[in-house]
Amino acid sequence: MDFGEVLSILKDDLNKVEASIKENFQSDVVLIPTISNYLSNGGKRIRPILILISSRLCGYNNGNKHITYSCVAEFIHTATLLHDDVLDEAEIRRGNPAANLRWGNGASVLVGDFLLSRSLTMMAEVKDPRAIFYFSEASRKMVEGEVLELTNPFNLNITEEKYIDIIKRKTAALMSASCRVGAILAKSLSTEEDTLSNFGAKVGTAFQLVDDVFDYISEEGKIGKQVGKDITNGKITLPMIHLYNNASQEDRKSIEEIVKTGNTQKENFNKIVDLMKKYHSIDYTMDKARGYIREAKEEMTSFKDSLYLNAILSVADYIVERDM
Amino acid sequence: MDFGEVLSILKDDLNKVEASIKENFQSDVVLIPTISNYLSNGGKRIRPILILISSRLCGYNNGNKHITYSCVAEFIHTATLLHDDVLDEAEIRRGNPAANLRWGNGASVLVGDFLLSRSLTMMAEVKDPRAIFYFSEASRKMVEGEVLELTNPFNLNITEEKYIDIIKRKTAALMSASCRVGAILAKSLSTEEDTLSNFGAKVGTAFQLVDDVFDYISEEGKIGKQVGKDITNGKITLPMIHLYNNASQEDRKSIEEIVKTGNTQKENFNKIVDLMKKYHSIDYTMDKARGYIREAKEEMTSFKDSLYLNAILSVADYIVERDM
Repeated sequence: MDFGEVLSILKDDLNKVEASIKENFQSDVVLIPTISNYLSNGGKRIRPILILISSRLCGYNNGNKHITYSCVAEFIHTATLLHDDVLDEAEIRRGNPAANLRWGNGASVLVGDFLLSRSLTMMAEVKDPRAIFYFSEASRKMVEGEVLELTNPFNLNITEEKYIDIIKRKTAALMSASCRVGAILAKSLSTEEDTLSNFGAKVGTAFQLVDDVFDYISEEGKIGKQVGKDITNGKITLPMIHLYNNASQEDRKSIEEIVKTGNTQKENFNKIVDLMKKYHSIDYTMDKARGYIREAKEEMTSFKDSLYLNAILSVADYIVERDM
Repeated sequence: MDFGEVLSILKDDLNKVEASIKENFQSDVVLIPTISNYLSNGGKRIRPILILISSRLCGYNNGNKHITYSCVAEFIHTATLLHDDVLDEAEIRRGNPAANLRWGNGASVLVGDFLLSRSLTMMAEVKDPRAIFYFSEASRKMVEGEVLELTNPFNLNITEEKYIDIIKRKTAALMSASCRVGAILAKSLSTEEDTLSNFGAKVGTAFQLVDDVFDYISEEGKIGKQVGKDITNGKITLPMIHLYNNASQEDRKSIEEIVKTGNTQKENFNKIVDLMKKYHSIDYTMDKARGYIREAKEEMTSFKDSLYLNAILSVADYIVERDM
């Protein structure tokens, strides 16, 4: 099954998710739906897709709670994007000028908070404390990951282990919770819950690794955000860690100079990308990502073969095969 | 009963709230407890006080959920302060340099998010969807109030009605929810719940009116934040609305000039304060606040006389009598 088929199996549910997203960011304070609407376009909806498939895979088929939780996860994710853009002073997000540049940092912070509060109300209405617990723990971990990243800027000596710890919190936690909540919804066995949670964590880690690669090798305009922002923002990701640890003394000096000044004008940026090619840092990172995907899929061998098992495995493949 | 006696009745509970606050902002990411600890000192703990008294008043006496919810409300409030400081570029908060100046906007946004996620986990552990619902609705209203304020900067033509709508959302909503949650905790009658919710909303409105007055008339250093920031930030509050609506043509021109340039150097600021005295704008605002406190207390006549009834009425009085 390819990712296009996954989307077609989920088509009805995904349409409902889109409707739920639009419905739930409504407010009589007009700036809120304006910014939310502006930002909600262009998302890949990976977290909703994980929830929808997990819940179906575990047998959920009588209600619309999977739609509600999909909307919750997407709101939590979108709130993070809004708050991140304030941190990163981002200029492009999901292919458009970032909200903070268009409406100011204040609006980005507040609309993020609005989406968080809405997601909380929606969860309160579903009335399952366990789902609330796992989503809130995921939110906490995401923040911890972001703070860890923020407090290690321009640090070329960060270890691969520390970096993996950061992305497990920052990105993998919400994908893990999304998969788990799908199982919770289906009142699934706790072993299935744990399996799906592990699957989501590994897929999420791979997802971030690929994202970090895209920041170096994507064609401008394709990934919906700027290329080369990680260096500018002092984010030392795996391609850079690998490069720095494997480069010659001389090359390390050039890298240090570029990273420390944060000057990523075309010439400097191309130099870094060339070095990454020379030392196979991109390949190394992609191999790591593929390794996590392989492990994620191995987690799922306890599930019987089914349409939705094939679908979730296909999502895993898509994570490392996607081109944006 | 005076406010000192209220604090002494609640002493044990308030100590537990302090311990709970410190315990719940722990994280292996050290910057998080550092900032949380820095910020948690100096708070008046009005929302915890309202929860503690409301729960006791309605008969709650078997457990520690009132402590948990007090911590939740204080975390939601503190998160708002952190996020507000990013919006306002605040320099002083709770008597110390604001967190955003010391650690940067990013850290303020993220630690605010951390406290929100922690408050959510704590609520999930108590497992009462109704409390979660009311706290999340309060959070939503707070954000809406902030966004309304943000989208009306330097607008001298804002009506008193619109301003009251803003502060009802921005400040009163969380105090209202705090009082209601106390009643929910005691499995109280729904009429008592509504009464306490109305009481909290009115007390909260008065609280903000008094805060807005303090921004003009406090001695520097006393209120734990800067004086005169509202004009600089373009926040048109009731003293200013009253002044502008009642001033002579000539005085209105001076006001417009000062407000539009946002220049609140001592001379300009003193001019505004003198005009507020001339036109009794401070008295007008304080009278409004006292009116809300009167109404709040009238709400409570359905409760039988008791220690905790006296305590909550004393809190209401304190709101308009406090000097910080």
